[in-house]
Amino acid sequence: MSEAPAATGRQEQERSRVTRQRLMEAAISALSELGWAGATMTVIAERAGVSRGACQHHFPTRGDLVAAAVEYVGHQQMEELGRRAARLPADQRRTESILHMLAGFYTHPLFVAAVQLWVAASTDEELRSQLVPVETKVGREVHRLTVSLLGVDEREPGVRELVQATLDLVRGLGLANLLRDDSARRKKILHRWALTLEDALRPRSGRKAED
Amino acid sequence: MSEAPAATGRQEQERSRVTRQRLMEAAISALSELGWAGATMTVIAERAGVSRGACQHHFPTRGDLVAAAVEYVGHQQMEELGRRAARLPADQRRTESILHMLAGFYTHPLFVAAVQLWVAASTDEELRSQLVPVETKVGREVHRLTVSLLGVDEREPGVRELVQATLDLVRGLGLANLLRDDSARRKKILHRWALTLEDALRPRSGRKAED
Repeated sequence: MSEAPAATGRQEQERSRVTRQRLMEAAISALSELGWAGATMTVIAERAGVSRGACQHHFPTRGDLVAAAVEYVGHQQMEELGRRAARLPADQRRTESILHMLAGFYTHPLFVAAVQLWVAASTDEELRSQLVPVETKVGREVHRLTVSLLGVDEREPGVRELVQATLDLVRGLGLANLLRDDSARRKKILHRWALTLEDALRPRSGRKAED
Repeated sequence: MSEAPAATGRQEQERSRVTRQRLMEAAISALSELGWAGATMTVIAERAGVSRGACQHHFPTRGDLVAAAVEYVGHQQMEELGRRAARLPADQRRTESILHMLAGFYTHPLFVAAVQLWVAASTDEELRSQLVPVETKVGREVHRLTVSLLGVDEREPGVRELVQATLDLVRGLGLANLLRDDSARRKKILHRWALTLEDALRPRSGRKAED
């Protein structure tokens, strides 16, 4: 056997990977800018510079495309967050820096696209069944990363709920940023949350019994 | 002058008020169930049992109708919250009860409708300009009510931000409830946040300097 077919196979695989990636990125940008109604397959394919036929070859339905896109872009964002976190200094402002990074995740176009999708899915059962597993997976990944960044132990009582509350807070802040630039208000809230969280996450010994 | 025209005038006013109210309530239920794309003026008028012409007489555009509806239903919800709050016992679980009431506000169909609107407005400038003032007004009203329910003093450092964080948290919890019943997780988070918030809101004297 000559090596040509294998090389061509690899090239095709690589082309296919690049096409999928372009489509997924175009899906997120189209969704965040145009909403579910505006981000049709035709619009997404055009933005990605891919023919409508090639688009449907990779993703039979728009639900397939957006579910894959949320998972792919979500995972990429997580990796970027992990890299940036590795460079964070272990100083007094560490908790606040982590919160700012998380808030950055939930004000990114990916989050705007995700909210567009959740809202569309809340009245569309098929889309919901495609999104819920992806959203659960991305949510777990963010949770795990946050626990590891904060360096806390979830077996301690209340720690898990405080991490969840922190993530629900930054999601709420992302929502508040949807209609306007909310960054000044957000900065003050995160400063106070960081102080409160540090205080609440301190090892329980020496604190009053609470439950 | 006889009294008949005045009486008729009053009757007309009352009819007009009832019609507006029906339309606003139908707008919220249609939005939360069908989304922005599905909740057309025709659908809303039909749900309210009002002719399309009468609907447009009261609200020239759909933007006018939904902005009025969010303000009206938001205000009604606030009043209901105030009434329920007045019956809350002043016991140890008061903070947690307040948080549950607020979370109830942000998992109500009004909130689902509001998220549908925010998302639609994020890609529609005209709708955004109609919604932002209403949303600011409702937001201020909820904030004021929360401060009064918690019985805290916003002049104390950090108190304002903790109240804001609490409201952003419950909005985030509302978002998490959009795709699934999240009540079991929410209950645990609110329990923990109630304890943390009480601790953080205790008068500063005797606590370490923080800022």
